[in-house]
Amino acid sequence: QNDLLSATGTTVFTVMSALATQHGAINLGQGFPDYEGPEDVVRAAADALLDHRNQYPPLTGLPELRQAVAAANRRFYGLEVDPDSEVIVTSGATEALTACLMAVLNPGDEVVLLEPLYDIYLPLVKLLGGVPKLVRLSPPKWELPRAELAAAFGPKTKAILFNSPMNPASKVFTAAELAFIAELCQRHDTYAVCDEVYEHLTFDGWKHIPLMTLPGMRERCMRIGSAGKTFSLTGWKVGYITADRSLAPNVAKAHQHLTFTTAPNLQRAVAVGLSKDDAYFESLSTELQARRDRLAEGLAALGFGVLPARGSYFITADFTPLGFAGDDVAFCRHLTEVAKVTAIPVSAFYPGPDAPRHFVRFAFCKRMEVLEEALSRLAAWK
Amino acid sequence: QNDLLSATGTTVFTVMSALATQHGAINLGQGFPDYEGPEDVVRAAADALLDHRNQYPPLTGLPELRQAVAAANRRFYGLEVDPDSEVIVTSGATEALTACLMAVLNPGDEVVLLEPLYDIYLPLVKLLGGVPKLVRLSPPKWELPRAELAAAFGPKTKAILFNSPMNPASKVFTAAELAFIAELCQRHDTYAVCDEVYEHLTFDGWKHIPLMTLPGMRERCMRIGSAGKTFSLTGWKVGYITADRSLAPNVAKAHQHLTFTTAPNLQRAVAVGLSKDDAYFESLSTELQARRDRLAEGLAALGFGVLPARGSYFITADFTPLGFAGDDVAFCRHLTEVAKVTAIPVSAFYPGPDAPRHFVRFAFCKRMEVLEEALSRLAAWK
Ligand SMILES: CSCCC(=O)C(=O)O
Ligand SMILES: CSCCC(=O)C(=O)O
Repeated sequence: QNDLLSATGTTVFTVMSALATQHGAINLGQGFPDYEGPEDVVRAAADALLDHRNQYPPLTGLPELRQAVAAANRRFYGLEVDPDSEVIVTSGATEALTACLMAVLNPGDEVVLLEPLYDIYLPLVKLLGGVPKLVRLSPPKWELPRAELAAAFGPKTKAILFNSPMNPASKVFTAAELAFIAELCQRHDTYAVCDEVYEHLTFDGWKHIPLMTLPGMRERCMRIGSAGKTFSLTGWKVGYITADRSLAPNVAKAHQHLTFTTAPNLQRAVAVGLSKDDAYFESLSTELQARRDRLAEGLAALGFGVLPARGSYFITADFTPLGFAGDDVAFCRHLTEVAKVTAIPVSAFYPGPDAPRHFVRFAFCKRMEVLEEALSRLAAWK
Repeated sequence: QNDLLSATGTTVFTVMSALATQHGAINLGQGFPDYEGPEDVVRAAADALLDHRNQYPPLTGLPELRQAVAAANRRFYGLEVDPDSEVIVTSGATEALTACLMAVLNPGDEVVLLEPLYDIYLPLVKLLGGVPKLVRLSPPKWELPRAELAAAFGPKTKAILFNSPMNPASKVFTAAELAFIAELCQRHDTYAVCDEVYEHLTFDGWKHIPLMTLPGMRERCMRIGSAGKTFSLTGWKVGYITADRSLAPNVAKAHQHLTFTTAPNLQRAVAVGLSKDDAYFESLSTELQARRDRLAEGLAALGFGVLPARGSYFITADFTPLGFAGDDVAFCRHLTEVAKVTAIPVSAFYPGPDAPRHFVRFAFCKRMEVLEEALSRLAAWK
């Protein structure tokens, strides 16, 4: 059997969700909303099943969804792309990530990654024959360590893979940071795989800027979006890649070996979703911000050291002030078993042995009453 | 960019479907029905969207679908598997193939493949670092060349990847052939990736036998099924893998890097489908057999040399008797542009240069009136 997979664990999100179920805990671990996405989008998906278009859609996606993705690029970021040759629909953002990396990496190519990182990034890069170069962002400010980042780029660098808004740091990269990254990509002639699944989930006036919109970066970036995150329908597994026409053909050929295509009814519904008015996208983030505020406030009141969360579904919190004797993995297990609230140990986002071990990640994409109940359970436990 | 992908073409099915659309041709190329799947299954998928279960399902699939897959294994083949640890739901059979190969291959491992083969098999094996060993079945009888097959296995062989019922040969492997393959797998201690997407599409009393049901093969096989093919809903992209508990964990970990999971409403509907009574599965094959008979008879009347088709969606036909001056690729292009009927050149299923060049593949999974119209167009052209 494959050695890398044999040595890899099941993703922490699945492990913690299973543990939550087993103990009847409120699951603030895996990042999925416990409320439904927009009714018109769900209804469109149901209607679309009934009108006889259930056979293979085109390899790169239905034209209506590719056009909707192109229109969203223009509307939100002023980015002009050709829907026919520069958009590829995938079966979720995980497939999109794999397709983008597969499209560009040859065995031995180096890939720059930023810690903390989504737990499949590292095994995925290795599975595809890539050599990861890790650069660490440090809490509580998660600033980009510019010298280390510059040092991680070299003649063998093929790409940087990074996530903004960033999970679990909830950091939104600034224009200055992106310019720094863009300069490195150009200097070393590399690609950038931009995991932007939380693009519409930013708070307090922070705005997401795609690296692809920076000067000189259009031909280098593969920008990944997620219908699951943008429409609070994480089970649908519809993603989309925006990439220059010089890159898109190889991405499409990777996709043809991964899933080939994606259910047409879901694609059509996502096209409806992307055409929703600005009010939808505004309320998506303001409602989420209210949930963040409630959870952050509650955790702070309990004594957690709550880090700022500018985007994504997640709050990172330092549990040191609570005086728990044990690391973050022990803390999360204890919390699930005793307090009946599940969080994710932040060390899971650091593949090496020297991870910080005093942070946990809470998902706040939950109904207010669920957040309240989780906070009462934590209060009772404490 | 990745060299292997840069050197690989877009799949022939997409290329020919695009050509068909461009020329207004009847598409007997890509294998998808032009009729709908069972209404109750489609309705179940629509209903399932509306009851608030649109977030991530479990990594290996919803329990109800895993149970339905296990029940189908028992009902059709007497194969007992544990739904919790031996079934993995994927986003289509393409993802299932990739996940199974990824689960077992290390770079440099050899994989035995049978020509003619589905066009992504070879690039996929190479992309995953495998070394393909090709063994050729020859028309018109497509018999297993036992000596060559035995010679292809060696100390570096990690797996055989094969397809029964077989596309495009429409061959259903016999018990004796499967026993021969099983013996080789055991002698050389290899796995078998069994692409059985056409398992329920067999004709004239031919019955599909999963290699996994042969003595000594349960722990070696990864058996792939397809809801798209079994319910005539190819766009849904729901597949399922049955694999021993000693193999399933690595398959699941590959899956976690490919798509992570699959839309819950489609999974629930497929569970409904797999629970349909025997009459459904019988009429699926008898109706398809009638379509095969109509197309075979019509092509023979036009002078094609029609090969037997015992399973799958496809007829292979020799166009030599028609006196066309050119190879199969030229013939298919000509047929699309002039006769306005699209077929697939069978040389696309042979990656090497010495492919047979006088066969084309016609899909018969089309409405009778469409088959009639295609035959009239061919008659008018001839
Ligand atoms: C695909 S499961 C993980 C969901 C997620 O993005 C997270 O919890 O970080
Ligand atoms: C996934 S597109 C190809 C469909 C098919 O299996 C075929 O036409 O052979």
